[in-house]
Amino acid sequence: MSLFKFAISKKDHESGARLGRLHTAHGWVDTPVFMAVGTQGTVKGMTPVQLREAGVGMVLGNTYHLMLRPTAELIAELGGLHRFMGWDGPILTDSGGFQVFSLADLTKRTDDGVTFRSHIDGAKHWLDAKRSMEVQRLLGSDVVMAFDDCTPYPSTREQTEASMRLTHRWADMSLDHFQGGQQALFGIVQGGMFPDLREESARVLCEKPFHGFAIGGLSVGESKDLMYPILRHTAPLLPDEKPRYLMGVGTPADLVNAVSVGVDMFDCVMPTRNARNGYAFTSEGAVSIKKAENKRSEKALDPACSCYTCKNFSRAYLNHVFKANEILSSVLMTYHNLAYYQDLMASMRAAIQEGRFAELKSRILSTYGAEDIETVNAPERAPTSSPNPSVAEEPSCG
Amino acid sequence: MSLFKFAISKKDHESGARLGRLHTAHGWVDTPVFMAVGTQGTVKGMTPVQLREAGVGMVLGNTYHLMLRPTAELIAELGGLHRFMGWDGPILTDSGGFQVFSLADLTKRTDDGVTFRSHIDGAKHWLDAKRSMEVQRLLGSDVVMAFDDCTPYPSTREQTEASMRLTHRWADMSLDHFQGGQQALFGIVQGGMFPDLREESARVLCEKPFHGFAIGGLSVGESKDLMYPILRHTAPLLPDEKPRYLMGVGTPADLVNAVSVGVDMFDCVMPTRNARNGYAFTSEGAVSIKKAENKRSEKALDPACSCYTCKNFSRAYLNHVFKANEILSSVLMTYHNLAYYQDLMASMRAAIQEGRFAELKSRILSTYGAEDIETVNAPERAPTSSPNPSVAEEPSCG
Repeated sequence: MSLFKFAISKKDHESGARLGRLHTAHGWVDTPVFMAVGTQGTVKGMTPVQLREAGVGMVLGNTYHLMLRPTAELIAELGGLHRFMGWDGPILTDSGGFQVFSLADLTKRTDDGVTFRSHIDGAKHWLDAKRSMEVQRLLGSDVVMAFDDCTPYPSTREQTEASMRLTHRWADMSLDHFQGGQQALFGIVQGGMFPDLREESARVLCEKPFHGFAIGGLSVGESKDLMYPILRHTAPLLPDEKPRYLMGVGTPADLVNAVSVGVDMFDCVMPTRNARNGYAFTSEGAVSIKKAENKRSEKALDPACSCYTCKNFSRAYLNHVFKANEILSSVLMTYHNLAYYQDLMASMRAAIQEGRFAELKSRILSTYGAEDIETVNAPERAPTSSPNPSVAEEPSCG
Repeated sequence: MSLFKFAISKKDHESGARLGRLHTAHGWVDTPVFMAVGTQGTVKGMTPVQLREAGVGMVLGNTYHLMLRPTAELIAELGGLHRFMGWDGPILTDSGGFQVFSLADLTKRTDDGVTFRSHIDGAKHWLDAKRSMEVQRLLGSDVVMAFDDCTPYPSTREQTEASMRLTHRWADMSLDHFQGGQQALFGIVQGGMFPDLREESARVLCEKPFHGFAIGGLSVGESKDLMYPILRHTAPLLPDEKPRYLMGVGTPADLVNAVSVGVDMFDCVMPTRNARNGYAFTSEGAVSIKKAENKRSEKALDPACSCYTCKNFSRAYLNHVFKANEILSSVLMTYHNLAYYQDLMASMRAAIQEGRFAELKSRILSTYGAEDIETVNAPERAPTSSPNPSVAEEPSCG
């Protein structure tokens, strides 16, 4: 029987923000929670001990990557993903569908699933709801995601509707093949940039016995003007008593905005990927460590942060190891960015508890010069071609 | 006044091995000691906390690299190398001479020093004994190395003799410009593969007021048949009461052999560089983690090791992260190799203390199928051309 349970302990009076706790077979995490992305069985550059020190409580693993290498069967043989990667906290795995379309070669999709060739060795593979459930069972994650079709951006209404119906079909197939045990299964709401399709997707899926619900198909290249209204519209459609997970999002401003409309769970490569590229999130906003102004700076990366990196190293040192292309640059920058994200989530939880979430939200939005989700209005109609295709190059869609 | 002090607490009855303690302004380390190489102000892939956990007590910094980037002046401005890299234990810096010849472009040597162009940006620099002492003073290392000329291998007797005389001249210049304070200064014995020149170099240098003596110009591409007899001949020529440092050496077998003839200090890139290339030193001998036999292995990298890597991860996981080109591969492999080297030194110290060094030595030599320094005989005469030039490609000469 699943040990999965979600309990809300407090709701914010002025917004949709909720404070909760997610219980799994591998312990609990408080929500809102940000999951660190551990694509290939490791959060890039971090040991599990460092993850814990940085405050990480829950990790996401990528089904697509792990099924190809070292294979889900090998991981199962070695005792499952937790044991394999030395992480004893909760793990959520995605369904693999999104990465098949973004990374694999020669994909061929039918209504049942997708045939593709591995980006590693060209070997032919098949992925559908049944196989996705099998792979995620072999990995032994605590939260399993239903196999879905992440609607690309931009898409026409007709494309979006067809994609959504496929997601609904695959949701049923996922439920059919999900074996339960200690795992929980989340459904994924699609519907692209069309509010009425989001409503339909939420209505159809929320009738099904999922343990939680994700909002997929956002942060795939669209502007905040499109994303925020859709998110604001969709989140409250999901069952109040179940966890709500916004896949592949986002910036600190995105997180506080999403929490304010009732989202409980997040994952994103941004803190880890940006760290490796020399970008930090700080209480003073974004910092590019390679900038000349940091070359002689004795200042901590974030003077308000008490993580290992900020307590022990100057910006000058971080600038040096970045320029010298040292492994330690990725390690120390990732350490800080993850600690920053975890501190951000902890401060949101404290603010909800203490009834001052609105104040925190406005401070974070102002730090990053970001818009409030409540005041962003959608364009008259969703464009059918991307206004800025370069943004879409590396989507981190759920 | 220098806080530098070296005290020998025990000598092995059956060999030249000594147990001692090196006191510096940044604390003490027990000898024989292996220093981790922190070329650019970081031991590649390790945080200072991880270094401590792996048992590292003393670190080596490279003058050449640091004077070019971020510059010794900047490091001094930021409080010195210890503070800059967050390492509060003893640091030894090399003189920079060796790397100028192996890494810089367009070097031009005179009897006074060398003009060269940076391998990073092509900028013109000058390095001589005076500048080397200045740079190492700015870095604030605990042990400063005299500026020397590392005789290349192979060299004729005439070349070796000329190079040795330059080293002696630069040793005097180093003493002239060394300012003392909390730093100690070591002289470097050269003389190539010629026993009588090694005698002359030791005799000339050991009369001078150095705090310790290094054996340079070994492990530069020559075979063990040449290196071991020279080392066996040279080490006992150095003053008994001062620390003896064998630069840029070596394998576990090299270390135990060198300790048996009275060497106290070592540094080498081997544990860290090999780790990044997927090679581990273990109680069962060398392990190549990428080998197929490790793909499904639940075994620890070294079942006899209690380091973080060996306690928490299987060979299968290490094989996976190596193949997936993950940063964590370098981190975990480096962690183990450094812990292995530190454990090896600790076991040598315990064995000397307890009068069972000979037994330990023979066990380590047998683990690696290596020769005993006592039974290796030099070829009839030192060859003047390298028998295996490829070995000399990446020398780690002192």
